[in-house]
Amino acid sequence: MVTILKLGGSIITDKDQPETVDQVALDRASEAISQFLDTGGNLVVVHGGGSFGHPYADKYDVSMTEGTDDAAALLEIHQAMGELTARVLESLHDQSVPALPVRPLSVAHRSANGDIEFPTAQIGTMLGEGFTPVINGDVVVHEGQGGTVLGGDGLVVTLADALDATQVGLCSSVPGVLDDDGVVIPEIVSYDDVADVLGGSESTDVTGGMAGKIRQLLALDMPASVFDLESLETFFETGSAGTVVR
Amino acid sequence: MVTILKLGGSIITDKDQPETVDQVALDRASEAISQFLDTGGNLVVVHGGGSFGHPYADKYDVSMTEGTDDAAALLEIHQAMGELTARVLESLHDQSVPALPVRPLSVAHRSANGDIEFPTAQIGTMLGEGFTPVINGDVVVHEGQGGTVLGGDGLVVTLADALDATQVGLCSSVPGVLDDDGVVIPEIVSYDDVADVLGGSESTDVTGGMAGKIRQLLALDMPASVFDLESLETFFETGSAGTVVR
Repeated sequence: MVTILKLGGSIITDKDQPETVDQVALDRASEAISQFLDTGGNLVVVHGGGSFGHPYADKYDVSMTEGTDDAAALLEIHQAMGELTARVLESLHDQSVPALPVRPLSVAHRSANGDIEFPTAQIGTMLGEGFTPVINGDVVVHEGQGGTVLGGDGLVVTLADALDATQVGLCSSVPGVLDDDGVVIPEIVSYDDVADVLGGSESTDVTGGMAGKIRQLLALDMPASVFDLESLETFFETGSAGTVVR
Repeated sequence: MVTILKLGGSIITDKDQPETVDQVALDRASEAISQFLDTGGNLVVVHGGGSFGHPYADKYDVSMTEGTDDAAALLEIHQAMGELTARVLESLHDQSVPALPVRPLSVAHRSANGDIEFPTAQIGTMLGEGFTPVINGDVVVHEGQGGTVLGGDGLVVTLADALDATQVGLCSSVPGVLDDDGVVIPEIVSYDDVADVLGGSESTDVTGGMAGKIRQLLALDMPASVFDLESLETFFETGSAGTVVR
């Protein structure tokens, strides 16, 4: 029984201010996580890059498919994400969440065809020992491309499969996927259902914005919820919130 | 053809001053590494903890066999080591070495019997893409123990086997293993040969000092050299230096 929660870069940072944490939102998420763990929940936290990761990825023209062999560029992106991870860990520890970092550059890589290999036995041991793994969107080495971006959404998909998660939640800056009238769509079962309402993300997002999220969640074996911070407790209590992608 | 070089915590830090880098020694090592890479060498760098890792491990009574389930303690040790890794990466990048970090807490774990599992496909991809992986002594999660220390020497042994290394070098603060007259012993093939000359390390070293090093190197399939910074170029040029452990 593993729950995977992604904290979107858009909620834990101010995406329009370079390297700025939204401390109120982050602390609120940490508090909800702490309460969930108190009920015996088994949780893996993934967080996006927001204003720590995306501006650097843009600066060096690195995306999920376009790589660079410039180690200094990859290191700069990785270290900026590390700053955000440190802030997330600090907020979680302040709420007595026994969080430990797992950094994708250290463990994962992409093969030449773009497939991610991400060994997860260490994450299983962390969970077994009572720790809460925290995994950041990152750069990873990519055969034939140097290094490319592994975004938070891609991580969620990879880890949900590998850890056989029972619940997946993406806590984002919107209450769900909205229809043309601004109403949350309760359920999505096919991308065609929502292709005309999904525009691009307003701020820079090398990992594909909402359209990319939905495509990746549709590929999962288990249902995934897209919701905002207001509904995080509901997600933890009921296993779904906002828009459920099946 | 992979060479593994361990930079001992005793040479890149002042082991008696908390969290103090020996910048001159570190930069000198980085320069030798840069020259080796220019000759086409394929290198994995491991570094020890020195005054960044050991004092924190002592503070929390964490060793290779005694663990803690205190996530805050593990994180403090891990982050202190991260500070040192950042300094090592900076020095290497200053010498145009395309170094990228691989942090053991993110990738490795110990099973209940103490065996290390350390997936290395990402390191193979880093090397294939022309990067130089830099791996730090760290804490790792340990089934039934919370987290324990995975020292630089243990890393060297684990990685030498996993990567089928052809050359292993431990660059330390002594020119080799010394006999009772202070002369470097050129070759060691059995621990019994040197049991009476190997005392404890002078400063705090949770990972076993020279005696621990030699025991672990004797277990390797390939020869390993123990030497000091003066002989780093010789090691790179000839594949051995100081004391060779077979």
